[in-house]
Amino acid sequence: MPELRKDPISGRWVIISIERGKRPSDFGMRVSPKKGGFCAFCEGNEHTTPPEIMSFRPDEGKPDTPGWKLRVVANKFPALSVEGELDRVGEGIFDKINGVGAHEVVIECPDHSMTLSTMPVKSVEEVLWAFHQRMQDLKKDKRFKYVLVFKNEGDDAGASLEHTHSQLIALPIVPQLVEEEIVQSKQYYDYKERCIFCDIIHQETASKTRVISENKDFIAIAPFASRSPFETMILPKDHRSSFGPDNNFNLLAEILQRTLKQIDKVLDLPPYNLMIHTSPFKNETNDYYHWHIEILPKLTKIAGFEWGSGFHINPTPPEEAAKFMREADV
Amino acid sequence: MPELRKDPISGRWVIISIERGKRPSDFGMRVSPKKGGFCAFCEGNEHTTPPEIMSFRPDEGKPDTPGWKLRVVANKFPALSVEGELDRVGEGIFDKINGVGAHEVVIECPDHSMTLSTMPVKSVEEVLWAFHQRMQDLKKDKRFKYVLVFKNEGDDAGASLEHTHSQLIALPIVPQLVEEEIVQSKQYYDYKERCIFCDIIHQETASKTRVISENKDFIAIAPFASRSPFETMILPKDHRSSFGPDNNFNLLAEILQRTLKQIDKVLDLPPYNLMIHTSPFKNETNDYYHWHIEILPKLTKIAGFEWGSGFHINPTPPEEAAKFMREADV
Repeated sequence: MPELRKDPISGRWVIISIERGKRPSDFGMRVSPKKGGFCAFCEGNEHTTPPEIMSFRPDEGKPDTPGWKLRVVANKFPALSVEGELDRVGEGIFDKINGVGAHEVVIECPDHSMTLSTMPVKSVEEVLWAFHQRMQDLKKDKRFKYVLVFKNEGDDAGASLEHTHSQLIALPIVPQLVEEEIVQSKQYYDYKERCIFCDIIHQETASKTRVISENKDFIAIAPFASRSPFETMILPKDHRSSFGPDNNFNLLAEILQRTLKQIDKVLDLPPYNLMIHTSPFKNETNDYYHWHIEILPKLTKIAGFEWGSGFHINPTPPEEAAKFMREADV
Repeated sequence: MPELRKDPISGRWVIISIERGKRPSDFGMRVSPKKGGFCAFCEGNEHTTPPEIMSFRPDEGKPDTPGWKLRVVANKFPALSVEGELDRVGEGIFDKINGVGAHEVVIECPDHSMTLSTMPVKSVEEVLWAFHQRMQDLKKDKRFKYVLVFKNEGDDAGASLEHTHSQLIALPIVPQLVEEEIVQSKQYYDYKERCIFCDIIHQETASKTRVISENKDFIAIAPFASRSPFETMILPKDHRSSFGPDNNFNLLAEILQRTLKQIDKVLDLPPYNLMIHTSPFKNETNDYYHWHIEILPKLTKIAGFEWGSGFHINPTPPEEAAKFMREADV
């Protein structure tokens, strides 16, 4: 019999359809091979992107020239505009805000053939440092309440360029999903005086069935109410409310890359989305919210049932997904 | 400058990125032409589907034989199981419920070449009657709290069969998105003593910019905070809390088909999802919730930003979408 499972952090229900019990080979989708051709993110083409906001340059060369290991540039087609004041206005019954925000691209490495799974783990660590430095810088702008870091890998996951990159969007409001997680976590904390994420880590570590891997500081699990097959969450084992370098970025890079290698191995290079959820700027240090990375391989379609209900149907139980991931030889 | 707009019913924010200002011809996706071949939903193949739950048969022929105008059958691959008791259990910190529910398919007409846009409008009305009759029947089962009616048109919108059909899923809990709309509508009603949907209809009718079409009983609008380009909402003009025949199904069929024809004309047969939101069984008649149809053409991809934030980025302002729809010659 299928199960309806509730995610205790977001309050979201999912249908785990055990009968359908899809195995990795049942998913046809995968990233198409890189097409190559001209790429604005490749080394040598620095002049074709907006100017560098920051870069890592071991040779200390000039901005917007070759010799970099990582570059951050403004998104050429930003979803929000960095100029302008934050203006809240009504339109009769409706509310709107000027679309003020920042939209940046982290070009993760100069080599077009690399991905976050295949680049040196040291480069993955540098990507994490870039996220941190940009978040710290964007925090100084008082118009922004939150920075969402995310990555789209593969055309079907929404990537419009194939060269490996992540994005940051600084927002004038806290995103709804983060806000919902915070409200639920706070309610749990008020009742139990414990962090709900810490409790989940404790229970998952004891039962082991949904644990994918761990190292000294981090754990990767298949969430109990995974929205899609092979959804993975990476969390610091000790309570940390915000993403930052007290989380030991080299161990984070290690488990992140291992997880992505497992996903690539089990699902044959699927498209995926990766998101970081952390505490909003106004309350970065707290006892109830626990920052984490969410990885969603793009294997199923969002259709009328999901759009109409807000529920997801997941044909692969997370216990089975975790087992496939653990057994992947990476 | 882009705008952040808040949907007053769901509380959801969207980014309307006016600069990107995508016109209909900018969207490449469309339904691929029907491939044909063997189809279990075609007349003559009744034995290849699960047995008929109901049908409209002008000749009063036997079930599961040709001669029907519409058939409802169980979904061969149900997301939920119709057998079994409703059992709520805990698993440590987690909550789950047996996946009890019903999953039915409405085969909207016997002709493989037809769609909801091209079939006789009388057949569209019969589809609405089938939804109503199945909802009334499923309501008798006390395990179910809600029936979600939805339709996936086209492969990219999640349709696995191309023969025109809709689906119903009876659920043991009220879907999260409906619950959120009800909570917000109730709060608005408690404060204003007016239905928020009635207020929206009033404001939209006065300003006209987002009205797509109307007839005596119904209105079609492009929602202020549309999640995707050309999102359309059809509502009864007078307050009606639940979907049912006191809504005059022949006028509903007329505006629904006209809207779908406009979408097909403007966007060249795009894939789309259609959902009905109505009051849950336990409170079918109330002053605060107003049933409606939501239609979402599938033109953009859900990527990391949407998954991580719960916000949507919509590159076509609803005012422009409504204008294109109004001007479509259908």
